[in-house]
Amino acid sequence: MRIYIINGPNLQNIGEREPDIYGKKSFDYYLYQLRKLYPDHEIFYFQSHTEGEIVGKIHSLVHEKIDASIINAGAYSHYSVALRDAISSVNIPFVNVHISNIYQREKFRYEDIIAQVCCGTISGLGLKSYKLAIEYLIDR
Amino acid sequence: MRIYIINGPNLQNIGEREPDIYGKKSFDYYLYQLRKLYPDHEIFYFQSHTEGEIVGKIHSLVHEKIDASIINAGAYSHYSVALRDAISSVNIPFVNVHISNIYQREKFRYEDIIAQVCCGTISGLGLKSYKLAIEYLIDR
Amino acid sequence: MRIYIINGPNLQNIGEREPDIYGKKSFDYYLYQLRKLYPDHEIFYFQSHTEGEIVGKIHSLVHEKIDASIINAGAYSHYSVALRDAISSVNIPFVNVHISNIYQREKFRYEDIIAQVCCGTISGLGLKSYKLAIEYLIDR
Amino acid sequence: MRIYIINGPNLQNIGEREPDIYGKKSFDYYLYQLRKLYPDHEIFYFQSHTEGEIVGKIHSLVHEKIDASIINAGAYSHYSVALRDAISSVNIPFVNVHISNIYQREKFRYEDIIAQVCCGTISGLGLKSYKLAIEYLIDR
Amino acid sequence: MRIYIINGPNLQNIGEREPDIYGKKSFDYYLYQLRKLYPDHEIFYFQSHTEGEIVGKIHSLVHEKIDASIINAGAYSHYSVALRDAISSVNIPFVNVHISNIYQREKFRYEDIIAQVCCGTISGLGLKSYKLAIEYLIDR
Amino acid sequence: MRIYIINGPNLQNIGEREPDIYGKKSFDYYLYQLRKLYPDHEIFYFQSHTEGEIVGKIHSLVHEKIDASIINAGAYSHYSVALRDAISSVNIPFVNVHISNIYQREKFRYEDIIAQVCCGTISGLGLKSYKLAIEYLIDR
Amino acid sequence: MRIYIINGPNLQNIGEREPDIYGKKSFDYYLYQLRKLYPDHEIFYFQSHTEGEIVGKIHSLVHEKIDASIINAGAYSHYSVALRDAISSVNIPFVNVHISNIYQREKFRYEDIIAQVCCGTISGLGLKSYKLAIEYLIDR
Amino acid sequence: MRIYIINGPNLQNIGEREPDIYGKKSFDYYLYQLRKLYPDHEIFYFQSHTEGEIVGKIHSLVHEKIDASIINAGAYSHYSVALRDAISSVNIPFVNVHISNIYQREKFRYEDIIAQVCCGTISGLGLKSYKLAIEYLIDR
Amino acid sequence: MRIYIINGPNLQNIGEREPDIYGKKSFDYYLYQLRKLYPDHEIFYFQSHTEGEIVGKIHSLVHEKIDASIINAGAYSHYSVALRDAISSVNIPFVNVHISNIYQREKFRYEDIIAQVCCGTISGLGLKSYKLAIEYLIDR
Amino acid sequence: MRIYIINGPNLQNIGEREPDIYGKKSFDYYLYQLRKLYPDHEIFYFQSHTEGEIVGKIHSLVHEKIDASIINAGAYSHYSVALRDAISSVNIPFVNVHISNIYQREKFRYEDIIAQVCCGTISGLGLKSYKLAIEYLIDR
Amino acid sequence: MRIYIINGPNLQNIGEREPDIYGKKSFDYYLYQLRKLYPDHEIFYFQSHTEGEIVGKIHSLVHEKIDASIINAGAYSHYSVALRDAISSVNIPFVNVHISNIYQREKFRYEDIIAQVCCGTISGLGLKSYKLAIEYLIDR
Amino acid sequence: MRIYIINGPNLQNIGEREPDIYGKKSFDYYLYQLRKLYPDHEIFYFQSHTEGEIVGKIHSLVHEKIDASIINAGAYSHYSVALRDAISSVNIPFVNVHISNIYQREKFRYEDIIAQVCCGTISGLGLKSYKLAIEYLIDR
Repeated sequence: MRIYIINGPNLQNIGEREPDIYGKKSFDYYLYQLRKLYPDHEIFYFQSHTEGEIVGKIHSLVHEKIDASIINAGAYSHYSVALRDAISSVNIPFVNVHISNIYQREKFRYEDIIAQVCCGTISGLGLKSYKLAIEYLIDR
Repeated sequence: MRIYIINGPNLQNIGEREPDIYGKKSFDYYLYQLRKLYPDHEIFYFQSHTEGEIVGKIHSLVHEKIDASIINAGAYSHYSVALRDAISSVNIPFVNVHISNIYQREKFRYEDIIAQVCCGTISGLGLKSYKLAIEYLIDR
Repeated sequence: MRIYIINGPNLQNIGEREPDIYGKKSFDYYLYQLRKLYPDHEIFYFQSHTEGEIVGKIHSLVHEKIDASIINAGAYSHYSVALRDAISSVNIPFVNVHISNIYQREKFRYEDIIAQVCCGTISGLGLKSYKLAIEYLIDR
Repeated sequence: MRIYIINGPNLQNIGEREPDIYGKKSFDYYLYQLRKLYPDHEIFYFQSHTEGEIVGKIHSLVHEKIDASIINAGAYSHYSVALRDAISSVNIPFVNVHISNIYQREKFRYEDIIAQVCCGTISGLGLKSYKLAIEYLIDR
Repeated sequence: MRIYIINGPNLQNIGEREPDIYGKKSFDYYLYQLRKLYPDHEIFYFQSHTEGEIVGKIHSLVHEKIDASIINAGAYSHYSVALRDAISSVNIPFVNVHISNIYQREKFRYEDIIAQVCCGTISGLGLKSYKLAIEYLIDR
Repeated sequence: MRIYIINGPNLQNIGEREPDIYGKKSFDYYLYQLRKLYPDHEIFYFQSHTEGEIVGKIHSLVHEKIDASIINAGAYSHYSVALRDAISSVNIPFVNVHISNIYQREKFRYEDIIAQVCCGTISGLGLKSYKLAIEYLIDR
Repeated sequence: MRIYIINGPNLQNIGEREPDIYGKKSFDYYLYQLRKLYPDHEIFYFQSHTEGEIVGKIHSLVHEKIDASIINAGAYSHYSVALRDAISSVNIPFVNVHISNIYQREKFRYEDIIAQVCCGTISGLGLKSYKLAIEYLIDR
Repeated sequence: MRIYIINGPNLQNIGEREPDIYGKKSFDYYLYQLRKLYPDHEIFYFQSHTEGEIVGKIHSLVHEKIDASIINAGAYSHYSVALRDAISSVNIPFVNVHISNIYQREKFRYEDIIAQVCCGTISGLGLKSYKLAIEYLIDR
Repeated sequence: MRIYIINGPNLQNIGEREPDIYGKKSFDYYLYQLRKLYPDHEIFYFQSHTEGEIVGKIHSLVHEKIDASIINAGAYSHYSVALRDAISSVNIPFVNVHISNIYQREKFRYEDIIAQVCCGTISGLGLKSYKLAIEYLIDR
Repeated sequence: MRIYIINGPNLQNIGEREPDIYGKKSFDYYLYQLRKLYPDHEIFYFQSHTEGEIVGKIHSLVHEKIDASIINAGAYSHYSVALRDAISSVNIPFVNVHISNIYQREKFRYEDIIAQVCCGTISGLGLKSYKLAIEYLIDR
Repeated sequence: MRIYIINGPNLQNIGEREPDIYGKKSFDYYLYQLRKLYPDHEIFYFQSHTEGEIVGKIHSLVHEKIDASIINAGAYSHYSVALRDAISSVNIPFVNVHISNIYQREKFRYEDIIAQVCCGTISGLGLKSYKLAIEYLIDR
Repeated sequence: MRIYIINGPNLQNIGEREPDIYGKKSFDYYLYQLRKLYPDHEIFYFQSHTEGEIVGKIHSLVHEKIDASIINAGAYSHYSVALRDAISSVNIPFVNVHISNIYQREKFRYEDIIAQVCCGTISGLGLKSYKLAIEYLIDR
């Protein structure tokens, strides 16, 4: 199975900053562990701060013959209709992921406009959320 | 590990009714499978249509020495402050679970007042959501 | 035809209390009259103050081979998503009934979340509303 | 008893258009049946697309010595304060009727500003709603 | 004077849990002190997590010849129209009590739909609120 | 000076209906008095229940060489954008008049969308409001 | 007749400032004209920027045996509940006056919480509004 | 092709009034030009200030064998559910037209409840909007 | 103990005006009774209609070595952020008091922005509310 | 005439995806047809998923001596204030275009913040919308 | 240059109270430093808790030949339309100042109705905000 | 001290466009003046139309050992949660700057979601705002 993990803005240095919200483990190391855990599957990774680049990447998934995707759109989850449109225009299952529990943060983070166009959402379960999403996608 | 799964109103006959929303597998059979999958852990189960009974069950978890809980409060997720208060008054981690993707249903299901007092939420991933929640609780 | 009348909270002593809103005739006597009026049909009756018990009763209608139901959910009409979910999960026609005209009372009674999952609503026509609902169900 | 049925805009050709919402029976034929069913009562009929004409008709009911009225204000139910004022200014009981279940249609149809000045409302029970309204008015 | 104290959901173990909100004294001991303080009055006590049971208890007050009641509806204060209807349907004075200052907690606790149907409200003054309510009822 | 008084829906029988809101004097008699009071001015009168007819009348004021107008749009004050557009498209001063104090009636009467396109508003001062409006127009 | 005109904040120098909103005539001169126009009536005048002083003045009207009052509460019209309470606590008719058309200014000026406790409102008719109010009070 | 142009209230004298909003060309002359431009098509025209008359005209289009319609409902675009219902009940394509850019005018003009039941909307492009609509309907 | 009672606007003549809301006993006499009831405590009293004077008085409490305060801010409870800031800036416990049940009056009285910065609130229990507040402060 | 067509995010592969919303014709082929249709005009084309790149392109239009522009900002129409500011800062007429009827899609697409700074809007008329926009710009 | 610094309610004892919000330096000492820093300019100072007194002071600035003013209206920033009207009625530049960052405090402090009638706002930069405002006014 | 000035979208050509809002001085020349004014400090500059690029630049400030930053996020101030998250994730003081007074422009510019994560805001004081921000940062 070919799975793409897409991380949105401000998610490049998890493990370094705001450890009370995001924990202390770096995403790179976590990714390395994930890949080792699922040797039979290809796990690709993309991160960008730029809404338009993420939109572009989502469209390219079709040509890259990706089977499923995991997206943590970060701040864009709350307002990027462009991202939402991109996800709903490609025919690939997406799992929506948030590392932190968005309902324990500011009120404006409660609205997640991407959740509707994904299969489902895993939020608040830390970096483990990505692993759970992969499990789901493989089982499916 | 002693884990309690708590299901709220209208969740007693999953597998029978509205298969396009909840799938065709019965919860009892699913529970049987879950228990076989995790033989080293004790998985308890409680279902009630009555808000007050669920509140009572949550308080009793402390005395039953439960380590963690998975709750699918069904319709009560959207308005039961009593349930919310019960969860936040006991010192046990809860994972909040929805079988269906609540953002693909009626608008009044978007507000989930229980999510804030749980560690996190898994929604829209079908019955598999319970298994993912258990994985998270064991890994934790 | 087997018809179930279900009354929600605070509707057990109609005829005794608040006669300016609910009239002076007791529900028991009214029921007795209804049954005499429709001798060819079985008219069952259930009343509970507890949301979860009403939810349970609705699910049991399927096993009791009920053909149609009349529900006056009282205060629960305005917020019980659990009741709403119960009604929409069973395959039985419901007529939604209010004795008083809810639009002549407090503003919070204007929203009736059960109306959407019933065939229709009869409101403000006093105890006669139940008889009209039966007429409709028989004619149907 | 002298009863006036008043239909508002777009209700002139029921039975012809949008049969999934309004059914296939024409209103004229239905009216003919109603009159046969209640030979002891006079049933008058008025339909207009124009708000002001309906207002005028309502005021004239007093001079025509009408005992009761049944109104299906159609789209005007949702915004015509003029109609509402007309009804509340004459001293005749009105039953408010909707053929379709307005809570299963667009959200803007949920607000019915005429319901408050009528005795009660019957909605969603098809053309039968008119018959039930007559029954109520006769019994009253 | 016969006074009934009614406590709603999650109020059974005050003194044990969340001492920063509810203090460390148990309600049972407090009740014992209250009864000693007012030996000329009968002070009854009822607690339930279940909305419908509290509704039922309120209706029974009439038959139990209770003179006045003190209610702390807990979470139900914010949404239970059923409770509100029960209180306004019996002819007994109620004092509405909150142990904590609801305006120093979450915003959704600001709306108290029961306050309107009680004589008055005492909120934020800890367990002492019950004593003040009794004083008021005796003086009245 | 040529002044046109325009009355909207339900204002044809003032003096007959709802005397607690509108008083007991008929508009015709009041008009007769007004004309006697201001013999040097021509006071014209128009009343219609129909929004479109009032719109038409407003446009015709230009051709009738009217100097000023007094409008009591009744219920249309609260929602008729068509009336508002008509008033703002002719180059004639309008005084907006309400017989009753709209702020002592239902909340939906608080919004008066015609007030903005008139010189000013006189509301709540009974039939005298028309006389005051004339005084203003003459003084102007 | 003893009539008190009360002007609120920022209304002391009408005629000097913002002539496009308030005109060029000074209030003092206008008052002088008013008094000459109505020699049989006593017209008193009070102006204050301070909410509490206006409240105090309103209470004192009772002891000063005032028959009626005209109030232009200026900015306080939009938020001073204290003023509103003062007016409704004395048993004297008030006419509410605005020199400018508040519906042609900022949106926050649309809400006038004093209008409800006055007999009526005259707004947008310039300084003439005071004269019209006096006419009304004398005629009354 | 048989095309009907329907203009709503206050649109009878375009070219005369408010030239900064609607331009200086009269609608009649414009219509004459349109008809000359499309000699192979029949272009009919209807204008009314009265909501109910426009509703009636829309229903009559079916019997007049009209192929398509262009509607500029003017002020009714913002609140006439009756018009909306009329359009959606006939099986004829409508193009929704506004001469002025409604988003450069008052905020209440932003909501256009007719747009949803038309094929599409052309707004702000002056009288040319009608020609563009015809082009679209012919090309279709 | 040195306790200051502070009354806000329109509370100077309780006992005289609006007896159905505030009762018939004068505040002065009530104060006299309170002082006799608690001879061991000093009870000071301040009333003002002016927001700024109450703010000033609250700041002076520190210098007057006051132990606790009871405030009935009247109308200012609903909008005076200045008062709220004054209370939260001094280190003295305040009990917030309303003579009438604010939830049985106009909707705008439901919001009490002072409640949050006080220990608690006693509302609707008449003049007795002050005595209960003193009891609480002494017991504390 | 030099006209620039600017397409926003997710509009690069029209004709391929979601044909029920956007049709089956590719934009490139459509553009080719447009250019052939208007040989006397230069039609330029730009598409980007990135908000900032579109902002940059809009500013560059001035230096590229463009006479007019047609923009379909896609998802950005609903929230990109940056785009809006760019358009209003250059002195070039823009026609706002939507291929689909945004009022037949999700509610959040109803708000179009770009419409206000364009001459006008053409929405819901498919790819033809671009041609109509060009016609308008040439005629202008 | 003659500059007036005006401080609103609760700002008289900065340096003493709530040092985590307002710092530990007293305003008097700060003022002394400011005056020394700008010996060529006259810096006047006024503080009042009373809305009306501040309104009065603002009007008097004209007669005192003040060139510019700095205002920190404290709590009144959020609701005093009277203050706002005073500022916009005098022809003197105002700089709006907040010592604390109002966006890091309660939500009701986000709305600053005075900002619109001042040249600009400096907020959150501590007592230094006053100095920066003076710099701006001198440079201007 | 090493200070970074970051300008957001549409701020590249200040001095050229919309001089009534932004003035006539170019930003480059202003920057040149600023650097000359503060020779002891290093003032860096970055401008981008692209949200993601600004996010990236903010993260890079840490590695570039910047002491403080001044940000004018332009349109992004009103909706870019991504920018807000970037600022709050780096440990560097930011001063939020707006050249124009955002409260004198469109209503949607009133909400500034970046203000909360900056030390403070300077708005409406023209290009001088940047200099004041530098003064503040140096003094700090």
